[in-house]
Amino acid sequence: MGVEIERKFLVKNTSWRDAVEGQDAILQGYLAETERASVRVRVKGDRGFLTIKGAAAGVSRAEFEYGIPLEDARAMLDTLSSLAVIEKVRYRVRSGRHLWELDVFAGENAGLVLAELELTSEDEPFELPDWAGEEVSSDARYYNLSLARNPFSRW
Amino acid sequence: MGVEIERKFLVKNTSWRDAVEGQDAILQGYLAETERASVRVRVKGDRGFLTIKGAAAGVSRAEFEYGIPLEDARAMLDTLSSLAVIEKVRYRVRSGRHLWELDVFAGENAGLVLAELELTSEDEPFELPDWAGEEVSSDARYYNLSLARNPFSRW
Repeated sequence: MGVEIERKFLVKNTSWRDAVEGQDAILQGYLAETERASVRVRVKGDRGFLTIKGAAAGVSRAEFEYGIPLEDARAMLDTLSSLAVIEKVRYRVRSGRHLWELDVFAGENAGLVLAELELTSEDEPFELPDWAGEEVSSDARYYNLSLARNPFSRW
Repeated sequence: MGVEIERKFLVKNTSWRDAVEGQDAILQGYLAETERASVRVRVKGDRGFLTIKGAAAGVSRAEFEYGIPLEDARAMLDTLSSLAVIEKVRYRVRSGRHLWELDVFAGENAGLVLAELELTSEDEPFELPDWAGEEVSSDARYYNLSLARNPFSRW
């Protein structure tokens, strides 16, 4: 188990593209969620993952993640997911000491680009890159679970 | 991934106790469920498991099970389960060529004893032991998920 501390920002220009250090295609879906937990299946590149997250409370929340066989993850996405499957490309983008993750969404969330920074404590200092726009860490519409329920194209 | 073929029976006497080959204390809870899937956390003896089951359709259903750290399983049962945690002792009971699992429930399901037999195909023959009573394979009240929602003591 770990506790995830994550800051999330909109992205206001494309200057981040010069600082890309790597990328992965991601497909993810949600098997189920309650007021206490959500259960996510993800295919990232050629690997599968199953992730349990505690219900969100600000920027910290419990997270349990396990690697699973790729074929299991694909079968679960195909048959057991009850919401839209999220498609995105995740870019790793360097900014100063930090490696950000920029998600460029496709499918029903096309047009949305989100930048995430994982921190080791809630008060860890970081520099805001010039491509970073409004902070949306606490805006529930931008949770991936929300984007599976109510995709960006329908806003 | 596997497909689980399971027959389930009530237990009408205690003659099975002479044929016990082993036992485990089990605690299990449900993180979430939808019309397509349920997500179960289990502590069995000193091991943890996370299990995804496809929605039930008769005696066959998709099942994905993964071993997880015991401390993760305990933390999830303590904090993320939204229904009652099921307590039971599972006995392995020999009958002819088959090894049955008999669940003796405790806590809110005390008084209930269920016998389960896992088969490799839906038409695999088996002998019904003399302690086996009515078949309840298709009775949704006896699903463990149902017993977490509506325990036996409240029937």
